[in-house]
Amino acid sequence: MGSQNIQLDQTGKLKHFLSIDGLSRDLITTILDHAETFTSVSERSSKKVPILRGKTVINLFFESSTRTRTTFELAAKRLSADVMNINLESSATKKGESLSDTLKTLEAMQADMFVVRHQDSGAAEFIARQVAQNISVINAGDGSHSHPTQAMLDMFTIRKHKKTFEQLRVAIVGDIAHSRVARSEIHALQILGVPEIRVVGPKTLIPTAIEKLGVRTFNSLERGIDKADVIIMLRLQQERMRSALLPSGREFFNTFGLTKEKLRLAKSDVIVMHPGPINRGVEIDSKVADSPASVILQQVTHGIAVRMAVMSLTMGASVT
Amino acid sequence: MGSQNIQLDQTGKLKHFLSIDGLSRDLITTILDHAETFTSVSERSSKKVPILRGKTVINLFFESSTRTRTTFELAAKRLSADVMNINLESSATKKGESLSDTLKTLEAMQADMFVVRHQDSGAAEFIARQVAQNISVINAGDGSHSHPTQAMLDMFTIRKHKKTFEQLRVAIVGDIAHSRVARSEIHALQILGVPEIRVVGPKTLIPTAIEKLGVRTFNSLERGIDKADVIIMLRLQQERMRSALLPSGREFFNTFGLTKEKLRLAKSDVIVMHPGPINRGVEIDSKVADSPASVILQQVTHGIAVRMAVMSLTMGASVT
Amino acid sequence: MGSQNIQLDQTGKLKHFLSIDGLSRDLITTILDHAETFTSVSERSSKKVPILRGKTVINLFFESSTRTRTTFELAAKRLSADVMNINLESSATKKGESLSDTLKTLEAMQADMFVVRHQDSGAAEFIARQVAQNISVINAGDGSHSHPTQAMLDMFTIRKHKKTFEQLRVAIVGDIAHSRVARSEIHALQILGVPEIRVVGPKTLIPTAIEKLGVRTFNSLERGIDKADVIIMLRLQQERMRSALLPSGREFFNTFGLTKEKLRLAKSDVIVMHPGPINRGVEIDSKVADSPASVILQQVTHGIAVRMAVMSLTMGASVT
Repeated sequence: MGSQNIQLDQTGKLKHFLSIDGLSRDLITTILDHAETFTSVSERSSKKVPILRGKTVINLFFESSTRTRTTFELAAKRLSADVMNINLESSATKKGESLSDTLKTLEAMQADMFVVRHQDSGAAEFIARQVAQNISVINAGDGSHSHPTQAMLDMFTIRKHKKTFEQLRVAIVGDIAHSRVARSEIHALQILGVPEIRVVGPKTLIPTAIEKLGVRTFNSLERGIDKADVIIMLRLQQERMRSALLPSGREFFNTFGLTKEKLRLAKSDVIVMHPGPINRGVEIDSKVADSPASVILQQVTHGIAVRMAVMSLTMGASVT
Repeated sequence: MGSQNIQLDQTGKLKHFLSIDGLSRDLITTILDHAETFTSVSERSSKKVPILRGKTVINLFFESSTRTRTTFELAAKRLSADVMNINLESSATKKGESLSDTLKTLEAMQADMFVVRHQDSGAAEFIARQVAQNISVINAGDGSHSHPTQAMLDMFTIRKHKKTFEQLRVAIVGDIAHSRVARSEIHALQILGVPEIRVVGPKTLIPTAIEKLGVRTFNSLERGIDKADVIIMLRLQQERMRSALLPSGREFFNTFGLTKEKLRLAKSDVIVMHPGPINRGVEIDSKVADSPASVILQQVTHGIAVRMAVMSLTMGASVT
Repeated sequence: MGSQNIQLDQTGKLKHFLSIDGLSRDLITTILDHAETFTSVSERSSKKVPILRGKTVINLFFESSTRTRTTFELAAKRLSADVMNINLESSATKKGESLSDTLKTLEAMQADMFVVRHQDSGAAEFIARQVAQNISVINAGDGSHSHPTQAMLDMFTIRKHKKTFEQLRVAIVGDIAHSRVARSEIHALQILGVPEIRVVGPKTLIPTAIEKLGVRTFNSLERGIDKADVIIMLRLQQERMRSALLPSGREFFNTFGLTKEKLRLAKSDVIVMHPGPINRGVEIDSKVADSPASVILQQVTHGIAVRMAVMSLTMGASVT
């Protein structure tokens, strides 16, 4: 942390939210605590608070993702911000304008926040380094690099169910290699003090360098989830994988799909998570997805609260 | 009515708005009375009321319809709701997610209302049967089944001009077979006590079973609109008709197009209605569409008020 | 001016904003003064004022322009209006509905303002002549005819830097022939009393009739910008030009591209403007675009304020 971390301002407060890497345990805990206050907002009859009233939030999506865009748009609207959706696949870049000029133009319109989704790793940080000082940048997923709000909502969900992180065994299962979610989660779990983090998947989908992050790798689902407190299933990014690293969905399910039977190997109070959308019968059996152990839909609910927290904090808004 | 009608809650109040069929005369009258209060809202300088402030309305459009989406979006915004447009032709379903999972995910985001447009008959009810208890579903048109808010705005328009329903002769003209509007209108007119409902069109466009609904069929426009108080012209759903059931637009106009001359066969104070968008010179002559007898644009205005009423009532909001 | 100017109501107040042509110096100055009050709104922490609360603004875009649409949407939202974006390339017109019927339908939804972008010259005025009396129409660019809010934000920017217009030498450089911006600017500069307006470009891109407007034409950039106070570079509308009137971008840059060296021919306190998006290395060198003489991004900021002013004034809203 410190001055070299572009996410923080000079007083150490959150300015941008780009990646989990480099955040302190205190800061992550602060975000989780703030999110707690927002879960009650969404349970009210009127789910709106005036915290970002009069602020302009721009969803800058260089790759389309209805689900992620919807969660940020909802979070911003419940904070009373004005939201603009700009799909840059189809916009000014067509006219040959550079990204830098597009950003400067949006800044000149006095935007307050950019929520950035981009197919290239590092894009959100690249943008954060360029923007004017008053603008906050939130990373809504950049290439295979990072998806920090997803990691935060997962941490929020784990804390809800397990209270503390210090005793947990967490298994992350599936396509680790192409998952920005996995990378962000590993960082978050480590910062929060989880003693045992496992990554589980076929060799072709686990990067060899990942053990440097301090995780244990398993190429067997059965051994990987043995006595786990938390299982995080990843979505098989079929649309992201060009080459034939992967057997068919059915074959994958046979070896790495989570079934009721295999789930018995985990602790009896295990929770099963998934960033969604789920591929039923590919990475997860319907009986698991719809079982009491599954907290997948709670993750969605928590996602709104966590995004409201991150948006408020980066804007320096006081939450009461 | 009662517990088997999914549209009503246990106390008999409107919970979803899926079809006219099965609603009581009292309930339909309540909706019309509520809509009356909203017509004055839209005539004010500031057309906004805080009735649904803090509520999240999601327009779930499985087939695109700018006009219908616009009316619901406007109605929701004038009730101060937050509105999200989700076009499911192009969204998560692409990623292989099931409809059921998409709905559960949107529920988990604490949506309060789904406005559903779908190409399949029964889709809105299917969705209403699945969603969480706190969510209301509004049918914005499902296949050739039902378009109940259109029927309600038509009833509202008729009541405005004719005061009561008990003495009326109403002719519905055109492509009855493919019209969800026609089906909803027949139900509404019957519940409201209209003694004579006529359907008028070429044999190929009138389903043989329709007389079971208690209407009279006519294959001659002249005889069908004779002494009518109300003529409801249907849009020729050219884009919906695949086969060659239909002569060309010009031929249709010659036999079933409503002209000034033919209109003289109806009562002198007849009103002419059309759900829009109109095909001038196909089902209706411009001289009729733009004549004082035409209330087509009033229907559009009433459509906003009726949708505000339905949205408020299903959300249990008290309207004052 | 007077009753034949459709832009003004009977008391001489601004009703529509269609073109600069025909506006009085007083009225243009009033708009600039109003815009001044809105620049402070956008500098506040909460950039929202309730001036158009409860009003419905419809962005009617017959050709897509993310940048222009975004500025109007932002301006409307900061005035607290409800905004609907309707892309008429892909909408009801597909179903064969006439433009006139589409407009009448939107009117019947009690819209208060249409912001119109259209590929045909005169489209905004055509629409203004048709709409109901309570609706204001703003021209957001029609064919090669007019783009009056762009001209106004340019005037605002010039006034900010030069205080008065009476002593200025202004050079407009580039593709004059296809530029709606140029046409609107020439009118505005003349009405505001600029004594010397120059248009500069290759012969093929300067209409022969333009001198009738009272401007001087130059086919040499060097002579055209000599001792200029203000240089307005136009965007090379490559997508608008079908035929081969134009050399390549690089060739254009060699003769008409604005470089640091050439800029020295202008006055030492010259300001350089551009409507954006800029083509770096085609009409303008990066060193000029990013130099202190460049006020291009200020133009964007002023664009929001000017649009808020125009929207408020045409709606008869009192600005305080």
